Amino acid sequence: MSVTLNSSEWNLVYNVFSFGLVSMLACTIYTLVSQSRVLPKYRNALVMSSMVTFIAGYHYWRIFNSFGEASEGMAVNVSGEQGAFNEAYRYVDWLLTVPLLLVEVIAVLALAKEVSRSLITRLVPASAAMIALGYPGEISSDQNTQVLYGVLSTIPFLYILYILFVELGKSLERQPAGVAETVGRLRLLLIATWGVYPIAYIFNIVGDESASSFVAVQVGYTIADVLAKCVFGLTILKIARMKSHAEGMAADH
Amino acid sequence: MSVTLNSSEWNLVYNVFSFGLVSMLACTIYTLVSQSRVLPKYRNALVMSSMVTFIAGYHYWRIFNSFGEASEGMAVNVSGEQGAFNEAYRYVDWLLTVPLLLVEVIAVLALAKEVSRSLITRLVPASAAMIALGYPGEISSDQNTQVLYGVLSTIPFLYILYILFVELGKSLERQPAGVAETVGRLRLLLIATWGVYPIAYIFNIVGDESASSFVAVQVGYTIADVLAKCVFGLTILKIARMKSHAEGMAADH
Repeated sequence: MSVTLNSSEWNLVYNVFSFGLVSMLACTIYTLVSQSRVLPKYRNALVMSSMVTFIAGYHYWRIFNSFGEASEGMAVNVSGEQGAFNEAYRYVDWLLTVPLLLVEVIAVLALAKEVSRSLITRLVPASAAMIALGYPGEISSDQNTQVLYGVLSTIPFLYILYILFVELGKSLERQPAGVAETVGRLRLLLIATWGVYPIAYIFNIVGDESASSFVAVQVGYTIADVLAKCVFGLTILKIARMKSHAEGMAADH
Repeated sequence: MSVTLNSSEWNLVYNVFSFGLVSMLACTIYTLVSQSRVLPKYRNALVMSSMVTFIAGYHYWRIFNSFGEASEGMAVNVSGEQGAFNEAYRYVDWLLTVPLLLVEVIAVLALAKEVSRSLITRLVPASAAMIALGYPGEISSDQNTQVLYGVLSTIPFLYILYILFVELGKSLERQPAGVAETVGRLRLLLIATWGVYPIAYIFNIVGDESASSFVAVQVGYTIADVLAKCVFGLTILKIARMKSHAEGMAADH
């Protein structure tokens, strides 16, 4: 089983993967080096952001190589056998990075200990369940199985949205000026980018196995990943700096 | 001699190895960057944790490559000859990391110098003996040899448990609040994860050389390694932070 791309499609996917890879690595270095620009209590959130982009960078490196090795004459082997393009790297990536992204948001808010713990102990299992339930649907070629796991994985997703928009909302009132708005934008970024994943998933179910749907899914995933990890991480840095300044760190630091 | 996997088995092992590799690397960076979050006296324990996950990350990179190179059409060469899947990477890894893990536990407790020295000079040779005695059994194909070395390697293992649960227990009473409980959980984590290795070893002796037993052993080893090294290291960081705060480090640092 293979998907044959034309040269502009093949090069687009190849270059988009390379773009994703270097964006993740650059963002990792940026957040690592920016540690000293925020108060110590916010550095853990920043390190988690570095971990997220590092893990994603590793996976884009693997995905990039896998794409090259699985292609012959721009026909991409998607058979799922040894030497095929390995889509599962994305699931391993999300299994690690999605819980980390959520913990990052809680950590940067520096809420009271019990509040943080309660949010984290619900967000982390919910996000792991969301990813783990999506995987059997992704690798299955049976449409009923795909729909079943798509629906199952939506349940923890809705629960995460409930926690972020309802429960977390209550804690935002006590944040310094500007922080609540930025966290609001962070949540919108999260919804907008996470929305790409179920769309790509549905695309896989209803889509013919055409070159253009392969290209759309890969390009869509990559752009969503760069937004959800790099831009997300830079927003975390911005929030950490706003809070550090509100708590007395010199504004020119 | 080879083991032929089906495509979902082959991909599971492949992706689990990649998961192990990136978990070890991310954990290495996390513990390296967190140095400044604990008092200087606890940083040595933390560096040792970084070394453990770095060494394990190196070996998972080798194991991942070895698995790909030893596979042809998803038949894994396990002949033990050049080009075969090299299980011995695990033993080299354990020979280095298991003594380090034990020293790490002692170092983070910051016990009196004589107590530390006495525990370390018994734990390190015992753990090296445990790994070294397991190796001849692992590479042998003779069942009597496998049982003999399995039993021999259990003796230092039991001695290590005795030291950790009886001797170390006496030193835990003088630790700050919460530390004794966390060390207790650390020991349980150690028992639960180290328990996987002898189970996998017995699996090798009694198991047929089937695909499913190969998959179970590789997946089991990897999950045990991630728990015994990454989760273990993060628990060491947690203990170091609890002790640093108990000794006057600012709580928001």
